[in-house]
Amino acid sequence: MTTTEPAETERTRLRRMRHKGSHQRAALDAVLAAGFVCHLGVLVDETPMVLPTTYGVVGDTLYVHGSVASRSLVQAQGTTVCVTVTHVDGLVLARSIFEHSVNYRSAMIYSVPRAVTDPKEKLGALRALTEQCLPGQWEYGRQPSRKELAATTLLALDLNEASVKTRSGPPDDGDSPDAALGLWAGVLPVTPMWGTPVPDPLLSPRVGMPAHVLTRAGTPVDRTSHGSSR
Amino acid sequence: MTTTEPAETERTRLRRMRHKGSHQRAALDAVLAAGFVCHLGVLVDETPMVLPTTYGVVGDTLYVHGSVASRSLVQAQGTTVCVTVTHVDGLVLARSIFEHSVNYRSAMIYSVPRAVTDPKEKLGALRALTEQCLPGQWEYGRQPSRKELAATTLLALDLNEASVKTRSGPPDDGDSPDAALGLWAGVLPVTPMWGTPVPDPLLSPRVGMPAHVLTRAGTPVDRTSHGSSR
Repeated sequence: MTTTEPAETERTRLRRMRHKGSHQRAALDAVLAAGFVCHLGVLVDETPMVLPTTYGVVGDTLYVHGSVASRSLVQAQGTTVCVTVTHVDGLVLARSIFEHSVNYRSAMIYSVPRAVTDPKEKLGALRALTEQCLPGQWEYGRQPSRKELAATTLLALDLNEASVKTRSGPPDDGDSPDAALGLWAGVLPVTPMWGTPVPDPLLSPRVGMPAHVLTRAGTPVDRTSHGSSR
Repeated sequence: MTTTEPAETERTRLRRMRHKGSHQRAALDAVLAAGFVCHLGVLVDETPMVLPTTYGVVGDTLYVHGSVASRSLVQAQGTTVCVTVTHVDGLVLARSIFEHSVNYRSAMIYSVPRAVTDPKEKLGALRALTEQCLPGQWEYGRQPSRKELAATTLLALDLNEASVKTRSGPPDDGDSPDAALGLWAGVLPVTPMWGTPVPDPLLSPRVGMPAHVLTRAGTPVDRTSHGSSR
């Protein structure tokens, strides 16, 4: 699958914290690969509405599940939306409150969504959404029927207008006069972890837990090298 | 400190998944108390822009740090913004892909931001922002100077137009024909955890780690009963 480099436009040009920004496609892919929830900003009655939803990626396209926001997405047809994916990596505890910060990785994508109508593309998008959440689940679960597919609204967003911002590393006041205060400073990391799977109470005890679920328990949600090496 | 119940308006009226929604102030407070990062949607050049940022709460006001989004927030003066706080609690793994879902708690707040100019209110807001991230840090750190306070942009958002949505519990297809497929179904929980604090490399080894940082390591970021009892 080929990918194209995201374009730098007026709105993705990084006016602030330019050193923290990137337009590299690899950086975008890394942020998208590290999670499964985005925040979708759509214009509804001339006001932005920010909705959390899951996403999937196929090549140069990000897919979101339309049903989470039917009303807003109907209104948003033909207008530009903004999708932001954020991973919080830690609190940056400086000597001064003023220098406190957050270590994070964040991607922002602008696109005019396209409604997916082709059943084959819909199937591929749902597969990507499912596998983004939990690899192995698409093949394991009962895949959508033709009727279910028809009842599913999916939106396709082009990844070619995007930017990535990150902050990592220690606080910035280690060489300031505040260093003499003798206060502890450093980073308190944050890592989303998978917990112990909870079987559906209606599940027969004879049904075993599949390996792709079982092996997740106690591991970081972020499977990218960033998530596992921290 | 008194609080008022959020109002139900045209845009926070829950058209979809009404049973999952709430306008109760206690529900809003619980979602806000469980984290420290929000996604702020602002209108910039007639397009929504979604920015991750930290927040703090004092009474009926949510504060965000203006510097994260100077350009957008200057443009957004006098216009309505949307702040969304989302906690992902788990993947809902159903028998059918169609019934897959996410357990979550999410709050959505609409407000016309007010720039904070009073130094005393600024100080209170910064205190709330700091304590939202890490209780104990405000008293421990070197508090802002008059000059730093003047250089800080803070926005105040009224909490009185808000809604809360949550999903919890097992998948919905336990009593459907798909239950006969013999597939495992249940919830794979997600919990953001604090990791082991990483001291600033420039820190003198004589400086010990304060208790409010040390005791966080290995605990859930969500300190509310929901986060600790799950």
